[in-house]
Amino acid sequence: MQCLLVYDIPDDAKRTKIADACLDYGLDRIQYSAFLGPLLPTHRDELLLKVKKILGRKPGNIQLFPLCQTDWEARCVIAQNAPPPGAAEAGDDD
Amino acid sequence: MQCLLVYDIPDDAKRTKIADACLDYGLDRIQYSAFLGPLLPTHRDELLLKVKKILGRKPGNIQLFPLCQTDWEARCVIAQNAPPPGAAEAGDDD
Repeated sequence: MQCLLVYDIPDDAKRTKIADACLDYGLDRIQYSAFLGPLLPTHRDELLLKVKKILGRKPGNIQLFPLCQTDWEARCVIAQNAPPPGAAEAGDDD
Repeated sequence: MQCLLVYDIPDDAKRTKIADACLDYGLDRIQYSAFLGPLLPTHRDELLLKVKKILGRKPGNIQLFPLCQTDWEARCVIAQNAPPPGAAEAGDDD
């Protein structure tokens, strides 16, 4: 089942370790603080235990959302890269 | 239907405006880059159009995930605040 994990972790070292754990479990980093990918329920539980252990008693907020096929297919993505240097700015509504 | 919106937006002004739009639509800020709350399908579409318009041609990644009741109830949250100053550090696995 697709799972989305998002976090806010002030401690740099903890954040890096938790990001590594997400990647180890096969999630893709879709944003700086968001990871997405398929996880079996057992792996989901394992990953949660692991990130909880890594976080220890440090402050942080970590949320994991399982996504059923219907929800997964209904996700909306707006993704824009920076225009190449020198590209026309026309259309920018700044 | 509960919706989760997460973003990566490098431009500070755009990010602030998009955060404000999410709050205007009744979403709660659950993390620095994550907003959550119930949205009617029409409001979801409106919000997406709005954030797309605010972003203009600037780089950014915005993803919105509708969450059915089952997915919503299956979400897992690890939330820890910073301990009060002077609190014992025992149990921290640093």
